[in-house]
Order: sequence, then C-alpha cells, then structure tokens
Amino acid sequence: MKRNAVYAQSGGVTAVINASAAAVIEAVRLNRAMIGALYAARNGIIGALTEDLLDTTPLSAPDVSALRHTPGGVFGSCRYKLPDPVKDDRHYRRLLEVFDAHQVGYFFYNGGNDSMDTALKLARYAQQAGYPLQVIGIPKTVDNDLPVTDCCPGFGSVAKYVAVSIREATLDLAAMASTSTQVFVFEVMGRHAGWIAAAGGLAFGSPPDTPLLILFPEVPFDAERFLARVSDTVARFGYCSVVVSEGVRDAEGTFLADAGTVDAFGHRQLGGAGLQVAQQVRGRLGLKTHWAVADYLQRSARHLASATDLAQAYALGREAVLLALAGQSGVAPVIARLADAPYRWEVASAPLEALANVERHLPADFISADGFGISEAARRYLAPLIVGEAYPPYRDGLPHYVQVQAAPVPRRLAQSFAL
Amino acid sequence: MKRNAVYAQSGGVTAVINASAAAVIEAVRLNRAMIGALYAARNGIIGALTEDLLDTTPLSAPDVSALRHTPGGVFGSCRYKLPDPVKDDRHYRRLLEVFDAHQVGYFFYNGGNDSMDTALKLARYAQQAGYPLQVIGIPKTVDNDLPVTDCCPGFGSVAKYVAVSIREATLDLAAMASTSTQVFVFEVMGRHAGWIAAAGGLAFGSPPDTPLLILFPEVPFDAERFLARVSDTVARFGYCSVVVSEGVRDAEGTFLADAGTVDAFGHRQLGGAGLQVAQQVRGRLGLKTHWAVADYLQRSARHLASATDLAQAYALGREAVLLALAGQSGVAPVIARLADAPYRWEVASAPLEALANVERHLPADFISADGFGISEAARRYLAPLIVGEAYPPYRDGLPHYVQVQAAPVPRRLAQSFAL
Repeated sequence: MKRNAVYAQSGGVTAVINASAAAVIEAVRLNRAMIGALYAARNGIIGALTEDLLDTTPLSAPDVSALRHTPGGVFGSCRYKLPDPVKDDRHYRRLLEVFDAHQVGYFFYNGGNDSMDTALKLARYAQQAGYPLQVIGIPKTVDNDLPVTDCCPGFGSVAKYVAVSIREATLDLAAMASTSTQVFVFEVMGRHAGWIAAAGGLAFGSPPDTPLLILFPEVPFDAERFLARVSDTVARFGYCSVVVSEGVRDAEGTFLADAGTVDAFGHRQLGGAGLQVAQQVRGRLGLKTHWAVADYLQRSARHLASATDLAQAYALGREAVLLALAGQSGVAPVIARLADAPYRWEVASAPLEALANVERHLPADFISADGFGISEAARRYLAPLIVGEAYPPYRDGLPHYVQVQAAPVPRRLAQSFAL
Repeated sequence: MKRNAVYAQSGGVTAVINASAAAVIEAVRLNRAMIGALYAARNGIIGALTEDLLDTTPLSAPDVSALRHTPGGVFGSCRYKLPDPVKDDRHYRRLLEVFDAHQVGYFFYNGGNDSMDTALKLARYAQQAGYPLQVIGIPKTVDNDLPVTDCCPGFGSVAKYVAVSIREATLDLAAMASTSTQVFVFEVMGRHAGWIAAAGGLAFGSPPDTPLLILFPEVPFDAERFLARVSDTVARFGYCSVVVSEGVRDAEGTFLADAGTVDAFGHRQLGGAGLQVAQQVRGRLGLKTHWAVADYLQRSARHLASATDLAQAYALGREAVLLALAGQSGVAPVIARLADAPYRWEVASAPLEALANVERHLPADFISADGFGISEAARRYLAPLIVGEAYPPYRDGLPHYVQVQAAPVPRRLAQSFAL
C-alpha cells in the first residue's frame, strides 16, 4: 500500500520557502503511483505533534504553482525545539503515533540547523523503533549558516534585497548630503554570522573606494575606529552609508543592541544595533544621520527575490521527493557549486549528520583587511546568488500572493498532545 | 537669441524625481530652436546661488533615458529655504546675476511646498526687476501634501512600497505567530500628514476585517485604545501588523518619536515612533514584537516604483517645458483626475500661488470611523496611484542605475556667494 507523506516548515520563513513547498507538492503529484496523500503540518512540527494536518490534495494546480511567488510560510512555521530523544522521547513517540495513524511513510522537514538535527533524530528514532519512515531534510535559512551546501535557499533573496536597498538609499543620501543627512545606517539580520551584512558589499566597490562601511558580527565593534572611518568617508565622498548586522558586538562580546537603553522612567527599552550606531554617529560626530531597520521586510521581500535563489529553493524541494522515492532517509538535498562565473550549480545530497548542528561562519578571508568591507573572495561567492529577477504577478498594483485552502485532515487519535 | 534654462531639484528626493529631470532634458532637446542649453544646478538652488551649474548638453540620450529608472537626485538636491525677498533680497538678486551671466531665461524648480513658494517669489522678483525669466514649478514630494494636483509625483511609488512591504511582512508574521512574533510594527514617513501611512491600508481589507492597524498623525495616539485593539486583533487573527507614521502624536501633541528616551548615561537618544509603539506592545501586552523602520528605503525604492507615478513624474517634467515654450511663468503643471476606476488623468496647469505654502492634509473622511484604518473614499483615491510596475533594468542581479557625467559650466562671475 502506498504510504502518505508529511511536509513541515520550521523556523524563520523566507521569501522562497513556499517554492520548496510547491516543489514537494508537484513532485509528489508526479509520483502518485509511489506516494499517497501529501499532508502539510500546520505551524510546522507543532502540527505534526498535535495531529493538526492539512491535506494538500484538493489544492488546485494554479494555487500550488502560485506558491513559487508567495512569501511567508503558507502552512505556518514555528520555533519549537524538540528535546533529545535519549532524555525524553515523548515527542518522537508521538510523531510516530501520528504518522502511524495516518499511514505516513515520508517526512519532509524544511528548515535550518535545528531542523536538520530534529530530522536526523527522528530518522534514527524511527529506525530503532522499527517504524518505516523516510526522513528527508530540505535546507532553508536566510542566515546561510548551514554547512556542506553552497548556500541556503532564502539567503540569496535577502542578499539581493539588502544590496539593492543600500544602493538605492545611498543614491538618496548622496543627493541630500550637501545640506542635510550625511550618514545612513541600515540594520540587517544575522545575529550570529555576517552573511547578510556582507551582501550589502555587493552594492559598491571594495574599500577604500566605497562610501559603504559594513559592521560584521565577526569583527568586534571599536567605536573609535568606526567613527574615524565614518569621518574619513564623509570627507572623501560627502556621505557615508553603513550596513550593520543586528549581531554586532563590542570587544567584551556585548551586543550593541543590548546597550542598556532605558526610557525616562528607567524601563529597559527595545533597541537595535542600527539605532545605537546612528546614535553614536550623531552624538559623537555631529553628523545628521538617518537609520532604517529592515527586519521582516528583508526576508519576506518576494517582490525582489533572486531568481537563482528561487530556482534553488524549488530544486531542493523536488530533489527531496526524488531522494525519498529512491529509498533514502536521513539525508538532505544540497547545492553544489561547480563554477563561480558564470555560476553553475547542481543538486547533490548529504547525510543529515553533516548538516545538523554545524554552523557555517563567514570565512575570515571574506572580510576586507580593514574589517569594514568584503573581500574579492566574498564577492566571488556572493555575486551569483543574487542574479536574476523573478517577479510575482501583480493585480491592481499589488503582488498576487495566494492563500491556499488546504482541507484539515480528520483526527484519528483520541489523545491530544501537550506541547 | 535663444536663452538658456536651469533645472534644479529641491528637498527630499524620490524614486521618480529623475524621471521629471529626464523629461525636462528630453523636451528641451526636442525644442532646440527655442531653448538654448539646459543647465542643472548642482545640489538644487545652492548650485544656482553659487554658480555651480552642470551642462546637460553632453549627456548621451541613453543616459538621459536611464534617469527614468534611477532613484535619488541625479544632480543633487538640498534643504535650503530662501528668505522672503521683501526682507532680504540678496538671494534673489544673486540668482538673477547668475542667470544673467549665463543667459538664462527659464528656471524649472522641481520640489514641494517650499519650492513652489520660492519659485513664485523668484518669478515676481524677476518681473519687478525687469529680468526676462520664466519660472515653472514641477511638483514632487513623497508627502503628497501639495494642493490642486491630484497627487504628487513620488508619492505613488512610496505608497506602493509601503503597501507591498506590509503585505509581505504580514505573511511572514502570520507564519510565525503560533510560537514566536505576534505583532509587527512598521514605521513609515509622514511627519505632518498620514498619506503614506494610509497607503498601508491598501494591502488589506477594511476594519475590522483586517489584521492591520494604522496609526495616523491626524489621530491622537491613545495608548489604551490602541493596545486594546492590538489585543483584539491578535485574538481574532493570531497576529497584528501596525503601520505607524513617524508623525504620530499623543493628545498633548507630543511626537511619540520624542518620548524622551535616554541612554544609561542619561544622554538623549534617537528614537522613532515605531520603536515606541513596539516597546509599548511588548511591555504592556507581553507580546513578542518585531519592528522595522523604512526611512530612506521607502522613497528610494525605484525597484518597486509605481508605473502610474513614473508616468506622472515624466508627464509633469515634459509639460513644464511646454508651458515655458508657451510663454508662461509662475505656473506649474499638475495632475487632474478624470476618473477613479479605471483611473484616468491628464496634465493641467495651476498658478504657483495656488500651490505655494498650502499643505493638503489627509481628509478626515479618509480615515475609518475607528481611527485605525482607511475608508472606502481613501481606497478609491489611493488605489490607482500604485498601479503598474516599472522595473529598472538589472545587471548581475542589481539595478543598473546611472551616474551621469554632466560637464561643469565655467563660472563667469567674479564674486562667490556666501550661503
């Protein structure tokens, strides 16, 4: 008998994670002889645990196809880390109960580091329990911090957004600098690694011939050195743009974002690295400063997605199904780079062990010698990832993003599950 | 003898102000028999005062055309308000000296309220001085606060950026809300009027059937009412997005952005309405909150410009030249709306008196009864302004924005001018 499949999204969503979802759905449909129904877990692994499943079968082909151009996470995602099954196997036991109740033999888990680890643990647990389950990871994360794969679907689109945005804002700044704003500060994501901040470097040439300074989490923030460079840059160009990673820390390891701002009543305030940097530039240098915070805009900006990123997100989703059909488990499709320029890549696969719980940091040689820009090596790596435009269709001036109507799968288990 | 022309940009630049510049240059080139050289003042009126002029004659036709898709202000802009000539005519006298030295008979001033006022004063001053100068205003401002014209070039593109961005970010939020962020706060421009904030309303339906709350400068901020609505919205949808104008004030008229935040050393901090709102949601409701600040990104986002806005920016630049050729002065081309849906508009003209120093506020009936959304009247007005995409060409994944190489015009005056 054909066994069913479950697909779940995990962690922060991206502009193209739904393209992976579309690929899984379409590849399963092309292989109806082998795989039964494809269920999506609502809100990620939580839906699998609580038996909150959605049947993708009734989704129309155009709606599924439209997921390629719809950002966010169409079935919902979650931040929920499962315990180690060696210490507490309650979650894993439950997952197998739910899967067994619904004849699920395939589990596709679309996420980052933690999710690859969870997928691995689940694959092993099922094997030990003698439950026939094939677990396939599908990499995605805007943080681009998974090892093995050339890059992570979701990252290329954020990189494009950051590079385009800082280029545009700097044109604005350049026009205003004679009498108004001279410094523009742009805070981007990347709490642990400077991949996203590095992408800002694609908008301009290399230091010192650039009006852009980048503040990486990998380079301890030295206010004096930074402010001196801002002064120099303004003296040279008339203005200075700064891309600052949310994860920038000082020499003691304190996040700039946690720099202890309090309100008039002494209450601790939300902050942000960008705000702190802008404050220092204005306060110490007396330069008029504007600042922006991209936050969710950067990772949901499907209107500006990278066509390369989109193609990779789709390719990995499709390959995940093919790996399952080939009888594999405990693996994930990955991107293998064949050449930088012109960029050539292919889909390969890797064991989840190689992906799980290993963070890929920005290589030291990707940062320019002065610490404020990217190296040529970084440029060679990053440049192809933002190539190509893949616009969503528009209606009445707005992107036509779909909300699919998947049917809830009737529950079969008597017991609910306490998260 | 043919007289030359000067074009200058003024105030905050927009995603499409260079399209007006392109239109002026192209229209002048089509009328070489009537108008001599077209000079651009570097950094706006400052360039005209300091005799810092750029000759647009050597610019290649492709480069001029490329200004249509290049954001920022290609010749530089400035924030510099001229004094009233009745009290101090030094600036106006100087302008006529510069214009006389360069045989300038046409002045095109591309700006907002203040610029229309300056243009008017200059037109009158020249007339009284017996200097043959035709002064034509070209409206532009993302603030959309000029009267008479249906809308202001620059606004439609910001409106599109805000509507698309909040729709995208809200899809992200919706995917994360089950276990993570439940409220997203997006700060947009509009210190004095809620036109830009209102555009966020286009992304969703009308209250109460929308997960979006808008905070307008026109509606005094009532923290209790707002927080209650956030709670209600989260209860109903699972999440809540908030578009907040930078100009939001409390009942006493104090800007939220100036809410007196100090750092650990008691220094006054940069703030922002978005930060304050996010702080209140997190602090008072205990909901996980993300916040973004668009700042310059919104008004430089040429990658997402409205085709309608672009067409209008170009049309007004072209018409400015035609008005000059028709012998007019002290006027500006404006947009006249003929129909809402489908939107039809034409270019008309208005005396600068009608445009200068009059701020058009968001009509009270554009705000929904509850104060947190837009009305159907607002929707009818706003919807057509964001219609149409007008993508810039891309190279290697980045928009191909031009930097034109205009030749400095040799100075002819012995005296410099102290600003």
